[in-house]
Amino acid sequence: MARVSQEHLDARRRQILDGAARCFARDGFHATSMQDVFKEVGLSAGAVYRYFGGKEDLIAAIAGEAVGGVRQAFERAARVSPPPTPDVLIGRVVRTLFGDDATRRGGLDPRAYAGLIVQVWAETLRSERLAATLGEAYEGLRVSWAELVGEYRASGMLAAGVPDEHIARTLIATAQGLIAQLAMFGDAGPEVLENGLRGLMSMDLQRAS
Amino acid sequence: MARVSQEHLDARRRQILDGAARCFARDGFHATSMQDVFKEVGLSAGAVYRYFGGKEDLIAAIAGEAVGGVRQAFERAARVSPPPTPDVLIGRVVRTLFGDDATRRGGLDPRAYAGLIVQVWAETLRSERLAATLGEAYEGLRVSWAELVGEYRASGMLAAGVPDEHIARTLIATAQGLIAQLAMFGDAGPEVLENGLRGLMSMDLQRAS
Repeated sequence: MARVSQEHLDARRRQILDGAARCFARDGFHATSMQDVFKEVGLSAGAVYRYFGGKEDLIAAIAGEAVGGVRQAFERAARVSPPPTPDVLIGRVVRTLFGDDATRRGGLDPRAYAGLIVQVWAETLRSERLAATLGEAYEGLRVSWAELVGEYRASGMLAAGVPDEHIARTLIATAQGLIAQLAMFGDAGPEVLENGLRGLMSMDLQRAS
Repeated sequence: MARVSQEHLDARRRQILDGAARCFARDGFHATSMQDVFKEVGLSAGAVYRYFGGKEDLIAAIAGEAVGGVRQAFERAARVSPPPTPDVLIGRVVRTLFGDDATRRGGLDPRAYAGLIVQVWAETLRSERLAATLGEAYEGLRVSWAELVGEYRASGMLAAGVPDEHIARTLIATAQGLIAQLAMFGDAGPEVLENGLRGLMSMDLQRAS
């Protein structure tokens, strides 16, 4: 039997994951069978099972990649020193995830990809495996964002005496909320958060009566 | 046959919806059968079908109530004149939805209720009926929040020249993101957004280098 190159194995794995993502985005996790996946990727059951043990494995791999993508997008955006303001930073993260480069999304369009993420959230409520994957990733994000907020504070940009972690989690929440809006209603681009955060940061609480 | 009072009909309907919500929150929409619902509420199939045509009807009714609850919570919080600042307002909305009064949540605890909402989001991607219900409600929220942002602007509190609607959608996004965090990771109370928004509003962009 001829030896198969790592490159070939990787490409095959990619092909299966992207096909499964298309099925899941179109029909949902529950209505998608492994047969649907075989058909979508044009491979035999045996070929697919060589890479993934079943639907749970596919979902976990796709969720892991999505979460890794968010972390990578954030790290790339925050690497600059001094760090960009939150509006710019969140904008860059969202642009990386939902921008022109569809290969990051397994070829899915932005709305379908956002829908896949919302499905992962719902699935997380039932699957301990997904909950562990997402919980760990979220913890990492929380820490990274809180460090960043600490830098804002050190530079004198941040006046309010509130926990840095709450600011970090609120920023993460804006991105999660945008994903929910994009999935359900379409038409939710990065400029919504860029402008929205810029507007909020420009508010003068002293003038509130 | 004795006539049945409206009060009795309403109580029975409530009993069925609350039982179905418990099933859905525990096992998910897909893994819950109508038989599970009959058993949970302790009523016969005939008794339940007198009120709801099937699982789709139950999901739609629960989603409609959840969405109505969000709108009502917002309207109650925004009724004051001049309107409270966004941190206070969002805090009140979240406190109304996830506070001590569990009857608003069909008896579910905050995390289970948040999980039910995330499930509704995922289901919205597959159901035109849910998409119509949620789309309309979201449109209403967007308009109400944008009007409110207009009031902030009129009072001179808002400096940045960004679309009011983007600020409105960013604020809605913070609440949606908090619901996602609460559903998946627990431990996400209203103070996260109250403090987080207060922190963001206190940021001085002039000092960003």
